[in-house]
Amino acid sequence: METEPSPGPAAGNNHKRRKHRAGRTSARHKVGLMPGSLVYVGEHHEQAASISVFDFDATTHRLIEAVRPEDVFAFRDSATTSWIRVVGVHDVAVIEKIGSHFQIHPLTLEDALNTTVRPRFEDSGSYLSVVAKSIGYDPETRALSTRQVSVVWGRGWVISFEEGGQSAFGPIQERIEKTIPRQRMINPDYLAYALVDLIVDHYFLVFEAIGDQIEEIEDSLVQNEERDRLSDILALKRVLATIRKAVWPVRETVSMLERSESALIKPETRIYIRDLYEHSLQVLDTIETSRDMASGLLDIYLTSVSNRMNAVMKVLTIIATIFIPLGFLAGVFGMNFDREISPFNMPELGMKYGYILFWVIVVVLGGGLVWWFRRKRWL
Amino acid sequence: METEPSPGPAAGNNHKRRKHRAGRTSARHKVGLMPGSLVYVGEHHEQAASISVFDFDATTHRLIEAVRPEDVFAFRDSATTSWIRVVGVHDVAVIEKIGSHFQIHPLTLEDALNTTVRPRFEDSGSYLSVVAKSIGYDPETRALSTRQVSVVWGRGWVISFEEGGQSAFGPIQERIEKTIPRQRMINPDYLAYALVDLIVDHYFLVFEAIGDQIEEIEDSLVQNEERDRLSDILALKRVLATIRKAVWPVRETVSMLERSESALIKPETRIYIRDLYEHSLQVLDTIETSRDMASGLLDIYLTSVSNRMNAVMKVLTIIATIFIPLGFLAGVFGMNFDREISPFNMPELGMKYGYILFWVIVVVLGGGLVWWFRRKRWL
Amino acid sequence: METEPSPGPAAGNNHKRRKHRAGRTSARHKVGLMPGSLVYVGEHHEQAASISVFDFDATTHRLIEAVRPEDVFAFRDSATTSWIRVVGVHDVAVIEKIGSHFQIHPLTLEDALNTTVRPRFEDSGSYLSVVAKSIGYDPETRALSTRQVSVVWGRGWVISFEEGGQSAFGPIQERIEKTIPRQRMINPDYLAYALVDLIVDHYFLVFEAIGDQIEEIEDSLVQNEERDRLSDILALKRVLATIRKAVWPVRETVSMLERSESALIKPETRIYIRDLYEHSLQVLDTIETSRDMASGLLDIYLTSVSNRMNAVMKVLTIIATIFIPLGFLAGVFGMNFDREISPFNMPELGMKYGYILFWVIVVVLGGGLVWWFRRKRWL
Amino acid sequence: METEPSPGPAAGNNHKRRKHRAGRTSARHKVGLMPGSLVYVGEHHEQAASISVFDFDATTHRLIEAVRPEDVFAFRDSATTSWIRVVGVHDVAVIEKIGSHFQIHPLTLEDALNTTVRPRFEDSGSYLSVVAKSIGYDPETRALSTRQVSVVWGRGWVISFEEGGQSAFGPIQERIEKTIPRQRMINPDYLAYALVDLIVDHYFLVFEAIGDQIEEIEDSLVQNEERDRLSDILALKRVLATIRKAVWPVRETVSMLERSESALIKPETRIYIRDLYEHSLQVLDTIETSRDMASGLLDIYLTSVSNRMNAVMKVLTIIATIFIPLGFLAGVFGMNFDREISPFNMPELGMKYGYILFWVIVVVLGGGLVWWFRRKRWL
Amino acid sequence: METEPSPGPAAGNNHKRRKHRAGRTSARHKVGLMPGSLVYVGEHHEQAASISVFDFDATTHRLIEAVRPEDVFAFRDSATTSWIRVVGVHDVAVIEKIGSHFQIHPLTLEDALNTTVRPRFEDSGSYLSVVAKSIGYDPETRALSTRQVSVVWGRGWVISFEEGGQSAFGPIQERIEKTIPRQRMINPDYLAYALVDLIVDHYFLVFEAIGDQIEEIEDSLVQNEERDRLSDILALKRVLATIRKAVWPVRETVSMLERSESALIKPETRIYIRDLYEHSLQVLDTIETSRDMASGLLDIYLTSVSNRMNAVMKVLTIIATIFIPLGFLAGVFGMNFDREISPFNMPELGMKYGYILFWVIVVVLGGGLVWWFRRKRWL
Repeated sequence: METEPSPGPAAGNNHKRRKHRAGRTSARHKVGLMPGSLVYVGEHHEQAASISVFDFDATTHRLIEAVRPEDVFAFRDSATTSWIRVVGVHDVAVIEKIGSHFQIHPLTLEDALNTTVRPRFEDSGSYLSVVAKSIGYDPETRALSTRQVSVVWGRGWVISFEEGGQSAFGPIQERIEKTIPRQRMINPDYLAYALVDLIVDHYFLVFEAIGDQIEEIEDSLVQNEERDRLSDILALKRVLATIRKAVWPVRETVSMLERSESALIKPETRIYIRDLYEHSLQVLDTIETSRDMASGLLDIYLTSVSNRMNAVMKVLTIIATIFIPLGFLAGVFGMNFDREISPFNMPELGMKYGYILFWVIVVVLGGGLVWWFRRKRWL
Repeated sequence: METEPSPGPAAGNNHKRRKHRAGRTSARHKVGLMPGSLVYVGEHHEQAASISVFDFDATTHRLIEAVRPEDVFAFRDSATTSWIRVVGVHDVAVIEKIGSHFQIHPLTLEDALNTTVRPRFEDSGSYLSVVAKSIGYDPETRALSTRQVSVVWGRGWVISFEEGGQSAFGPIQERIEKTIPRQRMINPDYLAYALVDLIVDHYFLVFEAIGDQIEEIEDSLVQNEERDRLSDILALKRVLATIRKAVWPVRETVSMLERSESALIKPETRIYIRDLYEHSLQVLDTIETSRDMASGLLDIYLTSVSNRMNAVMKVLTIIATIFIPLGFLAGVFGMNFDREISPFNMPELGMKYGYILFWVIVVVLGGGLVWWFRRKRWL
Repeated sequence: METEPSPGPAAGNNHKRRKHRAGRTSARHKVGLMPGSLVYVGEHHEQAASISVFDFDATTHRLIEAVRPEDVFAFRDSATTSWIRVVGVHDVAVIEKIGSHFQIHPLTLEDALNTTVRPRFEDSGSYLSVVAKSIGYDPETRALSTRQVSVVWGRGWVISFEEGGQSAFGPIQERIEKTIPRQRMINPDYLAYALVDLIVDHYFLVFEAIGDQIEEIEDSLVQNEERDRLSDILALKRVLATIRKAVWPVRETVSMLERSESALIKPETRIYIRDLYEHSLQVLDTIETSRDMASGLLDIYLTSVSNRMNAVMKVLTIIATIFIPLGFLAGVFGMNFDREISPFNMPELGMKYGYILFWVIVVVLGGGLVWWFRRKRWL
Repeated sequence: METEPSPGPAAGNNHKRRKHRAGRTSARHKVGLMPGSLVYVGEHHEQAASISVFDFDATTHRLIEAVRPEDVFAFRDSATTSWIRVVGVHDVAVIEKIGSHFQIHPLTLEDALNTTVRPRFEDSGSYLSVVAKSIGYDPETRALSTRQVSVVWGRGWVISFEEGGQSAFGPIQERIEKTIPRQRMINPDYLAYALVDLIVDHYFLVFEAIGDQIEEIEDSLVQNEERDRLSDILALKRVLATIRKAVWPVRETVSMLERSESALIKPETRIYIRDLYEHSLQVLDTIETSRDMASGLLDIYLTSVSNRMNAVMKVLTIIATIFIPLGFLAGVFGMNFDREISPFNMPELGMKYGYILFWVIVVVLGGGLVWWFRRKRWL
Repeated sequence: METEPSPGPAAGNNHKRRKHRAGRTSARHKVGLMPGSLVYVGEHHEQAASISVFDFDATTHRLIEAVRPEDVFAFRDSATTSWIRVVGVHDVAVIEKIGSHFQIHPLTLEDALNTTVRPRFEDSGSYLSVVAKSIGYDPETRALSTRQVSVVWGRGWVISFEEGGQSAFGPIQERIEKTIPRQRMINPDYLAYALVDLIVDHYFLVFEAIGDQIEEIEDSLVQNEERDRLSDILALKRVLATIRKAVWPVRETVSMLERSESALIKPETRIYIRDLYEHSLQVLDTIETSRDMASGLLDIYLTSVSNRMNAVMKVLTIIATIFIPLGFLAGVFGMNFDREISPFNMPELGMKYGYILFWVIVVVLGGGLVWWFRRKRWL
């Protein structure tokens, strides 16, 4: 599970991000290896991979948990539909054992192990495979987590590979258990479809959370709250860029699945895949709209900065416009022209009500300017 | 009916939006359910679904209102053309009963119930279906309402599903009643076309209203009115983003309808569908133009903010440029150089007309600057 | 003829635009009508439609003006090539009569009557039709006029429908009259091509005028003329948006005409249509370049606003930087420290040349700052 | 040859551009003429068209200069490869004579004469033709010159039409002369390819010059030179827009040439045309990169304006922040509170070292602010 | 190897770049030459080309270093797989010798020699060739180096041409040596694939380094560090533009390789090429994301300039708002109204605690403003 933390409250942030990266095997370690070499690329996980088998037919089902890789071999050719769930793709040996028994091409396994590959569909003749990204988003910490999921299915079996952590496929198992008799579900292609559909459905939850955040920031900017939202906006944009990279190829993947002429896809499942395709189109719509709006946020931010600067300028201008002329006036009456030499020199200073007159002028001038500013809506 | 209120006069707005959302069943409740499970996703409605049947042939017609779902079963195989109008798709039981009798696939019904799906066309062999969004816009409150509409038709029957509220299809019924004899209209495909065409025609009314608002805001910005239009602009952009999401797939939908080779579309109707396709292209043109113009508004807004700041700066500069030098002059004549020690010290203070000369300088200097500002068009 | 006046010198403008709109039948009146209902949508015209027939073969020609609709019926099946020119599509009755005799589909007629439809090509088997927009532009008033033109042609006849006003097709008639013998022109398809080509050729005149205006505004902005060009820029952008909507579909229209396999297009005409297609590509090139440049204008405008604000700031800074320190100095020498108590208190005031020294300092300091500003190119 | 002068040092510029235009026959004169009418559209040229024939086979070659149109007729059916070079397409009569003998369609000739047409390829069965634009750029005057070039070739002959001025094809002739034996070159299609390739190769020289200018302006902006580069940037953008219009269709032209199935293109030449196609892709890459960078320049310019304004503001703020408080202090000590009434009134004025203390305060306060500004890197 | 140094710390930079260019043979020298003429276009290299042959079959391998061109001839028809590595394409004679023996078309060799050509794939029947760009990036100096690599392969042989310098293909050789038995690798197509795959894998390392720099700059901007990052941002954008030009066509190249129906590509290799294609899609994703983010940097930079200007304005406003009114007050009490004439004239000056009161007013007023600024979060 690859967690991309959002840039938090400034300093130290950069440091953390770098440190975080150090914790995972980067693509760097893979360059120069033979294609098809099985190497896990992703975050480091301590616990071992967990394998469970959910085996069912139209009316019965059984769950076998925590099995060894060898134990699943029997299910390849069983009459029932067998769903082999592998959680923890960092366990290369396990993946390799299962893969070779089910005759899965090393490149397909490599994709399952490498958490940086793009979502994709592959038709290998004897099995089909889909790589997808499940995403989760915590609105509080703005942490985005992407988990790579691969679904491989052949005649009578489905294998799902997930990155370590909590499996995302609990609801599917529950649904199978509850539905009796199971018409559609006993087809491996329908099960595979249901797994991918669940992942796509989850996207909308994430988009909803992000949409809420975009609106919250926009409102805060329009209401000219003083809080600086720049880092929030950039964090959102980064989250959206990451989501887009993970989610964008999903349409193509599903489209290839839809157009596939493999006998492993039953005619009655095709209408569901067509539906899934429509969902993936909607995903693209939504993500583009979100990106548009997030891009717009920066414009609005700039606007709000301009507006604030405008407000600052107005305060300065009001103060200066009122007091600089009045200051000049006070300066005039502080001049030392020799009143004794001539009555033309500063006669105001000798007037009985001169000082009071000065204040009257001050109040009238100042008040007039305030009135003028009010009329111009500067105050 | 999903109403997206525009951000009103600032505060409280955000709160309202959130509250509003709580009132509808979100996509959140659907994640993890089996595809094809019939669950209504949309705003909550109290009243029950209303079903009516409008049954007609070339010369006669009859309207049966407020019928029970079971009552419409007979119309499936009647010789006449039967238009079954269901208003209120939140009533899942009703939809399910009708759907199963008319052998409509659960996925098609699910689309009719889920007000968040994209417009789409589907050819299921025995029937065709179109999902579309009818939109309404109140320029006063800037409230946009989108209503989901599904039209399903087979041999001799048309079923229209609408979200609860006022039906949008009154005019079509009136037209059918008035036209005698009805050549084209007795074809279900023509009726379905007419329903979709009405929805598309309504788009132009909304675009016209929005175009007027864009022009009004633009004029207000160019004339440098003091009112702050930022929230208006953002509201408009949000409305346009919502419309775009609802309306954008309509071209594709109609294009698929046009290219469909289903026997359920008569040759004589095809020319109308071609026409509808041209309309939907025009919808896209118009919406893109509107979006361009709305995007331009933000630029113009920023420009007007800059212009206003410029105006503020000019006032400040004029005041400071006139009074700071004059203030310096007054300061000079307020200095206390000892005139008695030397005649070189501030002889002006002892001149007979010194003070008058001072005011002459003030007036000449100030007037000169005012003249200069006028020449530079700052005043 | 739909004239879109540009936003003139601010106020009153908005009012005019709205009033103008009231004078035309809006799309609003058409919503809810049966498709194929003939309703004129466009500006109101008082005068009746004028119909003329220009009938010619390889060597002879005759012009019959101001005929009644019934008079043109005979030309449908005549051996000569007959060009029926209808100016004034608001006259629905006339259009309907002619249309029904020439067996033109109501939808085609509806397009000819509705001045808001997009340019399009239609192949109806027995006739072909093209809808296009002729545009005119008055650089002085920045008024853009668009006139809808439809050309319908079959075996031996061409009907052109134009919006009321001055016909745009005079030059074509003159050319036919002058050319003897007429090889190509006696084909209706060549005549139709020539009509559309004339419309497209006119576009370039409009683009040339607009290009000149863009350059004029750009020059005015770069030379920092004080005139505010914002409303000019916005007017130009609006004009270009309107043109684009009218002209953009022309490429598609001509492309469909080119690819049409109708027997109504002779092989020898195809090379001309191919040429017309190249022209329409050039139209798109030109309009996109114009739009780019007009968009650039707003950036340049913002730049020039920034530059002007910069200039204002410099004046303020120069004045303040020179006079605030000098004012401080004058203030110092206006202080009342008691010189009698101690010789350390303001000894300058008692110096013989103190005041002169003060002025020397003022001149040196002020001059130095002026020199510094000159070196920084602020002055 | 159409020279688009760049906007020079402001005034008079606009005037020149307009005057320049007057010197050429505009598209305006062509509107309303019959398509296929041969009219020269372009800059006015005084000198007559010059025609030369370069006739060669695998081992021999001869050059016949300054021939009359009639003299080239014989070369149409000669066994050798004949390259007829016409420089000066404004000479309509000459073009017409040659064209009619070689059975070139009037529309093809029209394209050769009209210097405003887009680059294009045409396959007319008996001959092929390519219209292209040769561009030249003078970095000093920023003058862009575009010359229209048409190459028409059939079995055994190639005709090149160039706008008046210096021919661009000298190098090709030299190469043919030098290469013996000539395997590929004796094919007219290879010669035509070489001519077009030369034009495309020249584009890169122009792009290199423009790239240098972009970098020079960018450096000058980043280093905050005081020179105003706005008009330079706009001139570059205008040059790029003109180039783009001339060069953009070249990819499509070459692509059509590549896909052409004409027997006039020999299989061994196809690999060269494929190579030319790759070059034309690179042209598009380069021009888009240049446009991106030129667009970026305006952003950088705005940034540099902002930076300069920031610098101005800092000077103002530093001066005001230091001297306004000091000025206040001087003002305080200039107050006239009656010290004789009470010892609380301005005791500082009566202190022995009061004045010195004042200056100490001034120096400490001012120095402290300077230190603070330095720490904030404002100084 | 073409190194594009980033704009360093301002001056001298431009000079360096120009000087650097002088050291390479520019495209300029190629214009006017016959296509297929072998001319090296790229940076000047002193050392001679080094040729080595790595010859292997399923179990054995041998490396022959520093051979003469003639020595490799024998490997063309050997039973083993021979990888001929040429490092230093500037040595035209060598390339020509090898090329002519292996019957490689001059145009293919020309592409290998010309370091400015776009990446491309070519199927010449008897051999396939891929031109690609290997890129390296030094984050410290921000120097980007691109090396042109061509891979040509036929039945049993692979020739790789690299620009002079250190070969990039060491890891591949090591892998071949270590893998025994070699099933896939003995196919020349697989070897060619592995070479191209290595180049593409390296791209991700460069993207990672650039991504880190983008984040570092973004953080520095958001935290409002005083360092000016403009030149850093522009350097990054230039680096990305260069990368994009080198890397963009790689998708198309690999796509053509994938779709190629040449017998030189074995079925078992196709799945690897499909994988390579997915990688190249990911390259495009990544580069577009990087470009987006780099473009965003300029916006953020502008924002940070605005923010800084805002900060400056606030300082100015705070100082002016506090001290200008206080200065006015001091000015008032420095006026010389004649107190002896009337008790109304400036009675404050005669009050016992007048001066203390003045300071109280100053402190209260100043303190109040400071409090107000704090509440507005200006301080």
